[in-house]
Amino acid sequence: MLVNGKQGNLISIRNRGLLYGDGVFRTLRATGGHALHWPLHYRKLQLDCVALGIACPDVGLLSAELNDLLVQHPDGVMKLIVTRGEGARGYAPATQSAPIRIWDIFPLPDYPADWATRGIKARLCQLRLAHQPQLAGIKHLNRLENVLAAAEWDDAGIAEGLLLDMSGNVIEGTRSNLFMVHSGTLLTPELTHCGVAGTQRERVLEWAATHGVPCRIAQFGLAELLAADELFLVNSIIGLWPVRELQDREWGHFPVAMQVQKWLNHAPD
Amino acid sequence: MLVNGKQGNLISIRNRGLLYGDGVFRTLRATGGHALHWPLHYRKLQLDCVALGIACPDVGLLSAELNDLLVQHPDGVMKLIVTRGEGARGYAPATQSAPIRIWDIFPLPDYPADWATRGIKARLCQLRLAHQPQLAGIKHLNRLENVLAAAEWDDAGIAEGLLLDMSGNVIEGTRSNLFMVHSGTLLTPELTHCGVAGTQRERVLEWAATHGVPCRIAQFGLAELLAADELFLVNSIIGLWPVRELQDREWGHFPVAMQVQKWLNHAPD
Repeated sequence: MLVNGKQGNLISIRNRGLLYGDGVFRTLRATGGHALHWPLHYRKLQLDCVALGIACPDVGLLSAELNDLLVQHPDGVMKLIVTRGEGARGYAPATQSAPIRIWDIFPLPDYPADWATRGIKARLCQLRLAHQPQLAGIKHLNRLENVLAAAEWDDAGIAEGLLLDMSGNVIEGTRSNLFMVHSGTLLTPELTHCGVAGTQRERVLEWAATHGVPCRIAQFGLAELLAADELFLVNSIIGLWPVRELQDREWGHFPVAMQVQKWLNHAPD
Repeated sequence: MLVNGKQGNLISIRNRGLLYGDGVFRTLRATGGHALHWPLHYRKLQLDCVALGIACPDVGLLSAELNDLLVQHPDGVMKLIVTRGEGARGYAPATQSAPIRIWDIFPLPDYPADWATRGIKARLCQLRLAHQPQLAGIKHLNRLENVLAAAEWDDAGIAEGLLLDMSGNVIEGTRSNLFMVHSGTLLTPELTHCGVAGTQRERVLEWAATHGVPCRIAQFGLAELLAADELFLVNSIIGLWPVRELQDREWGHFPVAMQVQKWLNHAPD
């Protein structure tokens, strides 16, 4: 673990990341000493920092820190947090506050192998995501909605919970982005009012664009979701999981999802 | 500063308060070795912990820690944070996670004395509060909305920013609760969709009930706010500030606010 470039796992209780969730984060998968899609993660980090008015640390600095970690931990989950820093008491950010960089490392989770091939069982969460356009899309540290949603079930056979927003639109999984296939068209929810726009979502959109597959970012509800030909979830750690079961609906065939998965797993950075 | 009862100002980077804003807090005013309205603050802390499924630390334990701090710091702002603790990676809270108690101390702010007597200049924030009934009222650590709202202005002559919700209802100040007086009736916004229900709001409601002043918790918009006979803001640190100026409207006379203020400042705990 690194805090501002130094070995350590402690931060000040005055860090605005703790006080207000005033920061952003990324979760990367490292294999064989290589952090997958780091340039894409950095671009997202930059955009998220801009959206919150946090000075994004330099790419060279963060890359050097990441490389140091990869030497010791060639395989694992690398979590990067950038907070606005420390400051005087009060919500208003000090203009001169220096962002704080935090790296943490975790073992790669060992999900059942058939979740990626035969699909997962998903559930619908009761929590509805709030509409906040000024925070939508950003991977920020205000994640109580995700915590409450993830606390709704404890059946280890259910791999992910899906979230609707206050208007009943399908948005995402608690820790993944969602796609569905409808008559050959790929659809993924619009994230202008809530949700997190992850890197793998962007990669799937890129896959569609480069493979001539029609793709739409749209608003849709539960009925359309359950009527989909295929449904799948993506994030940097799980890769792609097709959905095999949701409510009364079952799916057994994921031709598009499997093509996307292959590309996600093998396309260069 | 105390972390779990020990002198110190550091926490782990795996504290869920940092990772997800998974915790709650209180801000108390201490004068002459006495923390004002601690029992009321503890009750709110307890309610907020229950709402998030966090095991609230025992009142005896927290009171002992507070008393230790008051011996060394008889006057100041005491901030208490309770987070869900540390745990494995992932949003789902571990069932056995032990909450972490954090106390910090700050000097009392020196606001201009006439803000409490002649009133403040307030502004209307552009940020609109999102509707999330599962988090409404709770003083939790997901405070990016407050941060973004407080970042909207830097004119030191403006003491507070007022917040509307997505539907245009008046909700609160960035760090205070709001009351208005309309033809002898006291009104304060309903906080079932957003906002923080502070201790001083509860005390004002108690003042109204014990003084036979009609009082309503209601939904109202900006037009009604600007048509108010009086407008005032409360929190544990500022006490009560009447509003002297908001947009094109000015107020010069605060008979009800001054009565409430006197009672807030002098009523026993």
